Parts: sequence; structure tokens; C-alpha cells
Amino acid sequence: MRMYDIIVKKRNGFELSKEEINFFIEGFTKGEIPDYQASALLMAIFFNKMNTKETADLTMAMVNSGDVIDLSSIEGIKVDKHSTGGVGDKTSICLTPLVASVGIPVSKMSGRGLGHTGGTIDKLESFNGFSVELTESEFINNSNKIGIALTGQTGNIAPADKKLYALRDVTGTVDNMSLIASSIMSKKIASGADAIVLDVKVGDGAFMKTPEEAKALANEMVNIGKSVGRKTVGVISDMDQPLGYAIGNALEVKEAIDLLKGNGPKDLLELTLTLGSYMIICANKAESFEEARSLLLENIENGKGLEKLKEFVEAQGGDSSLVDDTSKLPKANYIEEVKADKSGIITKINTEAFGLIAMELGAGRETKDSNIDLAVGIVLNKKRGEKVKSGDIIAYIHSNDKSNIEKAKNKILCNINISDKIDKEIPLIYDVVQ
Amino acid sequence: MRMYDIIVKKRNGFELSKEEINFFIEGFTKGEIPDYQASALLMAIFFNKMNTKETADLTMAMVNSGDVIDLSSIEGIKVDKHSTGGVGDKTSICLTPLVASVGIPVSKMSGRGLGHTGGTIDKLESFNGFSVELTESEFINNSNKIGIALTGQTGNIAPADKKLYALRDVTGTVDNMSLIASSIMSKKIASGADAIVLDVKVGDGAFMKTPEEAKALANEMVNIGKSVGRKTVGVISDMDQPLGYAIGNALEVKEAIDLLKGNGPKDLLELTLTLGSYMIICANKAESFEEARSLLLENIENGKGLEKLKEFVEAQGGDSSLVDDTSKLPKANYIEEVKADKSGIITKINTEAFGLIAMELGAGRETKDSNIDLAVGIVLNKKRGEKVKSGDIIAYIHSNDKSNIEKAKNKILCNINISDKIDKEIPLIYDVVQ
Repeated sequence: MRMYDIIVKKRNGFELSKEEINFFIEGFTKGEIPDYQASALLMAIFFNKMNTKETADLTMAMVNSGDVIDLSSIEGIKVDKHSTGGVGDKTSICLTPLVASVGIPVSKMSGRGLGHTGGTIDKLESFNGFSVELTESEFINNSNKIGIALTGQTGNIAPADKKLYALRDVTGTVDNMSLIASSIMSKKIASGADAIVLDVKVGDGAFMKTPEEAKALANEMVNIGKSVGRKTVGVISDMDQPLGYAIGNALEVKEAIDLLKGNGPKDLLELTLTLGSYMIICANKAESFEEARSLLLENIENGKGLEKLKEFVEAQGGDSSLVDDTSKLPKANYIEEVKADKSGIITKINTEAFGLIAMELGAGRETKDSNIDLAVGIVLNKKRGEKVKSGDIIAYIHSNDKSNIEKAKNKILCNINISDKIDKEIPLIYDVVQ
Repeated sequence: MRMYDIIVKKRNGFELSKEEINFFIEGFTKGEIPDYQASALLMAIFFNKMNTKETADLTMAMVNSGDVIDLSSIEGIKVDKHSTGGVGDKTSICLTPLVASVGIPVSKMSGRGLGHTGGTIDKLESFNGFSVELTESEFINNSNKIGIALTGQTGNIAPADKKLYALRDVTGTVDNMSLIASSIMSKKIASGADAIVLDVKVGDGAFMKTPEEAKALANEMVNIGKSVGRKTVGVISDMDQPLGYAIGNALEVKEAIDLLKGNGPKDLLELTLTLGSYMIICANKAESFEEARSLLLENIENGKGLEKLKEFVEAQGGDSSLVDDTSKLPKANYIEEVKADKSGIITKINTEAFGLIAMELGAGRETKDSNIDLAVGIVLNKKRGEKVKSGDIIAYIHSNDKSNIEKAKNKILCNINISDKIDKEIPLIYDVVQ
């Protein structure tokens, strides 16, 4: 088999066989196939696409390029949740303990990541002492004992994906459904989940800009899951405004805690209930969506979800008293009000811009080596569709650097549209693919 | 400017600017742009094509990546001729002295090359002592004194093309008209010609398999020539059977000499007259095709073309007595007849196969370091459209190795179709683009 022939075959529009895809991924991972041949193939895939079978084969080839985590010593059906990423997305913080409180084992590998704010691990480090440095036996014991454990990405998970993504990133070959879907799914499958619930974001703060694109990606991932025997659900949700009100690590943790206390923002609550219900159904813990939903609502009302978060934080060395007293979470030195400069209805919040403003305040990493400031960020006071009067507070800036507040304020005002009437209603949940 | 943006721009179907193309070629030649980005762009070009302007810009960027030869100290309009390559193509050997005898300066850079037989330089080395190792002043003096000089590829001609071709060759990005055309034209333009006559071969022994493809390539190259101010003519000629009868270095030289003696094969003569006439017209030495043609025919009849060949060979250190007595050319130890195994009409000669048989006999180089045997090859005795009876000689094998004759004989028989009737007439000259 020759890489040259594989490139030409895809270039000419033919389906690649499993053997050819394995040959490529194995050779590429070992460094035997040079980057310049890999990038030529990636560009040919960009133009000629891959079908469902090829995409599943590519996913499994990447899964098999490294370690595959064995979660069989954890009891029950392990359901993982993955979000394609958005601004203010703190769903994991409230969703995972809530689901665990219903009796679904959450044994999750998570990342820090680049972006507008830190990843889930960064956010949870808002709890003094919280650590994801668990040994394998601690990870399994915690999972079995309290039903929830979180570890950083350990071992050698899908190294082919890591190498391939780095190449795609510099060769203009990121934007292909099969490549995006296989990249996400290979990591989830290698991490050992039995079932996967995907939150596919759509809107200006997401990678997918239109519902059609998001649906196509969800379909692609659900198909991969199906063809490798993992129950997979794709929920397509709005990212055309930040999720909830808070953007920034500790600020988001507070909002997630508030949700478990029964005071969550409407959209964050709805998304948490939707994703959680599908997780429960995947785990065979409820027959219907309604039954699953009421299990979750019940555990918010009776405080069991909040209790599970405390157990979880404690089990990983964190100070769980912050759950009860969120005023002890990291706090910024300066909190500045941003006031509307006109009256009307908020018709649009430029979501990606808000992500960038939060990053500039110090909430996110621009490069792998950047430090993040857990305390800083933005808290919106109004969201899309709400009426405001000139002078009303529309947001709060949380900053530890006085000098960057004015710039952030101007940017916030530029990126919230206030107008006479809203021209279209945007749903929170567009669609569910399963 | 970033290479990433250039890749994405072409990927999305937009025209690249001259500045972007220069940035790519300069950076790639210097090694500042990595191969994996170049190959991604090449594949995007494969799919989204380049227009005439982009192709011309690419050509000139490659010209300017290295030395540009200055032929201004040679008097007259310098016309170069280039063939896209075929089996039995010895046209340069007879055409260049014939054209020079009419008063058109032929100051040519030529190659050895890989392939079925050697390049023009290899073939001319059939004359004992012939050398292309000329100093610059010898090259210019010979050109001005006798009107013809040949040198090997010297200096640093279009290094970007060399590097880019090597990458295309291993990434499935050779087959694109703009890339093929700019590769050929960049070398011709950098070699200093004022005008270029292109022999674009079509058929199973050529790179272009259909007349449509060949015409598209000819158009592409003529457009490049026009847009950079070089008069360019593209002649589309048949390569669905070997040109003339001889395939092999000294064997081809003999056939070219025979032509200048008035005994050339019909197709070789016709092609020589056609290409030569366009060279004469490009050099403003005749008003019409007919006038040019009769100048050439005259110099065959009066022996001036043959005389010019002798002068040329002598001026470059070769033994010109071989022109008068071709029996002194390198000769193979074994000459074996190949006889038809049935009666009928020759309907097809598998041209590429004949090239490979000649190479296996030792006439060509398989790798850069292979030695070639000037004496060996094949001489056809019959060509397409001729009647044969079972037992008639259809070809002669010239070999220096008894053990490879039987295999060559079988392959020759397999690759000549003898049938009841010929189903289509194939013209020698399909079209002329100018």
C-alpha cells in the first residue's frame, strides 16, 4: 500500500477502505508518512468528503492510535457529555453532579483548553485545593463510592487526532464535518464511555454558524457512535448569546451552584435538564424524557444535586464550604457597572466578541502557557429580548486590572445591539439527533 | 501575509493575487513555507484551478526564483522548441540544425532526463567526443558563428519549479493544467528564448491522453507566453504510435540523419517541417507557413541542413564523419527480427509499452543514476495502417544482452494489434494553437 495511491484515490472521489485509512493513520502517527502527504490527503477530503463508513473507520483508527481507557470496573452504564464549546458554557459544573445524584456514574476525563475562559478543570479549581491528579484507583474508587470522579487527560489518548489536528490547523483543513466529528468522537470513545450525549452549539459564539451545519455535524457524530456501538445523542443548542449570565471561571461556578440551589438562569436550567434527561435515558434510568426530567428537577428541589457537588469537590481535595458560601470563591478587586446608552430591546449580543472581552480581562488562555485569572470576567444583567432603558445596568465587569476596564466597557457597549423590535425568535434547543 | 490565508483563499475558490503567488513561491523556495502547507495549496489548486492570470503569475514567480539566462549577445530572434515528450521523438536532432541552416539562431539548453530513451544530449553523445560542456563564451561564439549551440542545463534555472515538481510528484498534484503549463514555461522563459514553439503530444505514449486535454494544455502555455510577451505556438501532434521507426539513442540519431539526407520517415518529416515552419515564422524569417516550409525542404534537398549538423557536431568536439557514415554510430551486438504471428492490418501500436521495452533493453534511465546503452533499442519495420502477412518482419530488436531478446520479442508481439480493418484515422497534427 502506498500513501500516494490513497491520496489520488480520494482526490478522484472514491471511498477509502478501512485498510487504507488504518495505513494512513498508523503511518502518520509513527511519522512514517510525512506531513506533506497527510495535508494533501486532508485537502482532498475537504473537497471530496468522506462518507459515514469512512468517517467511522477514521474515528476508530484514531481511537486505536493510543490508549483506550477501560472503565469496566466502574459499575453501571457510563455516559459522557461533550460540548462543542461556547461562551459562558458552565453546563458541566452543574450537570455532572446533578446526573450523578440520580445514580448515573460520571467518570470523566476533562481538559483545560485554550479559549475565552478556562476548561472545566480550570473552573473547578475555583474551589481551593481541588485537584484532578487522581491515581487510577482513586478515580475508580470515587466513581464507585460517590458516583462521580474527574481526571485530567491522562495517558496517550488518540495521539493521531492530536497530530492531525495540529496539521489541519495550519493547512486550512479544519472545516470538514467528517474530520471535526471524528476528532471529537475519537477522544470520547478512547475515554471509555458507553454512551455519549453531545451538545452541539450553533450561533456566532460557536464553531457552527448555522443550524444546518450544526445538524450535519450532530448527524455525523451520532452516525459514528452508532456504527461503533456507542449510544449517541446530539442536542443542537443556541450559542447566539452567552449561556446564562456569567462569563469567567469562578463567576460561572457561582452560577452553576446557584442553579443547583434552584436559582439558575432559565436557559442554563433548560439546557441542563435537556442534556441530563438524555444522559439518564442513555443510562436506562428512565423510560421517557418526562420521567428523566422530573428526576432531575426533584434532585434540584431536594438539594441532592447540590449535595453531590459538595461530595465531589471534597473527594477531590477541594473546599466544599464554598458551595454553601459562594462569597468565598475567588473575587475580582474591581466590579464595574456597564450602563445602556440607549433605550429599546436587546436584539443581539455578539457572543464571540464577549468571549474575547472575557479573555482580554484574563479569564482565558491565548496560548498554552498563559495564566488565567479565575476571578475575572463579565456578568450580564440583561439578555436577548429584554427591554432596557438608557442608563440601566446591562452588565458588570469583574477585573483585577483597573486599566483594562474602560476598553472592556466600550467593547461591551459596541457588542450589544439595542433596537426597536426583535426580528426573530431563537430557540434554545434547535433539534435533537439520535 | 500568511500562507494559511492563501491556502484558505484558494480553497474557497478565489483568485490569488500576484503578491500572494510571489509570497508563496519565494517562501517555499527559501524553505520558509513548509512542504505541508505547499501541498495543501497544490491540492486546493487541483480542485479549484487557476485562471490565466494566476498561471502567468505563478510562471513568472518560478522564473524569478533563480537565474534568468541573458541571450542578448546572440544576434537574431532566439526561438526555442519544446516537446512534452514521447516515444521515438528524435525531432530535435534533425530540426535544430535544419532551422539553424535557414538562419535562425538555435541556442539551446537541453536535458538528459529520465524516460524510455535518453534526452537530446544523450542521443548526441552517439557522436564520439560530443560534449555540452561549453563555457559561456564558447556557447555564445558558436551561436553567433555557426548559428547553433547546445549546452546542458546550467546554473540555477527555476529552482522553485524543481522543488515544487518534486512535491507534486508525491502528493497526487501533478495533473493540473496550470501547474503543468507553468512548470514547462518557467524553464523555457528562464532559459532566455524570445519565442517558443511547443510540441504537445497526445496519445497513449504521451502525458496527455486525449486531444481535448492536449489542446487545453497548449492553450494554457500559449496564454502564459502571450501574457509575458513571448510569442508562443502550440502544435498538437500524435503520440499514439512511436514517431518514425527508431526507438533508442543512436538508432534515433541515424533516423534523424537519414531525414536530413532526404530519406526520413513521413511522419517525422512532416512534424519537423511543421514545427520548423512555426519557428521560422516566430523568428520573422518567412511571411507564410508555405514559404517557411519550402525554405526547410530546400535545405534538406540541397544538403545545407545536413552540413549544419556536421558543423554543429564538430564545433562541440564530436566526430562529424559519423554523419556521412552512420555505420560508425554505436551498434548493438545482436539484431533480432520480430515476425508477425498473423496477417492483417496494424491497427494499434501500444506506444508507452514500446517505450518501456526500449528502456528494459537499456536505452533509457529508470533512475537518475542508471547508465544508458546508446546502441540498443527497437526499429519498427511496419507502422499503423500497414498490411502485414504472418511471417513478415514487423520490428528489429537491437540488444547487447542475448538474454533479454526473447522477452522483448514477446512484448513487442503483444503490443502490436493486427486486425481486419482500422477503425479510425489518426492525424499526425491535430491542431495548432497560437
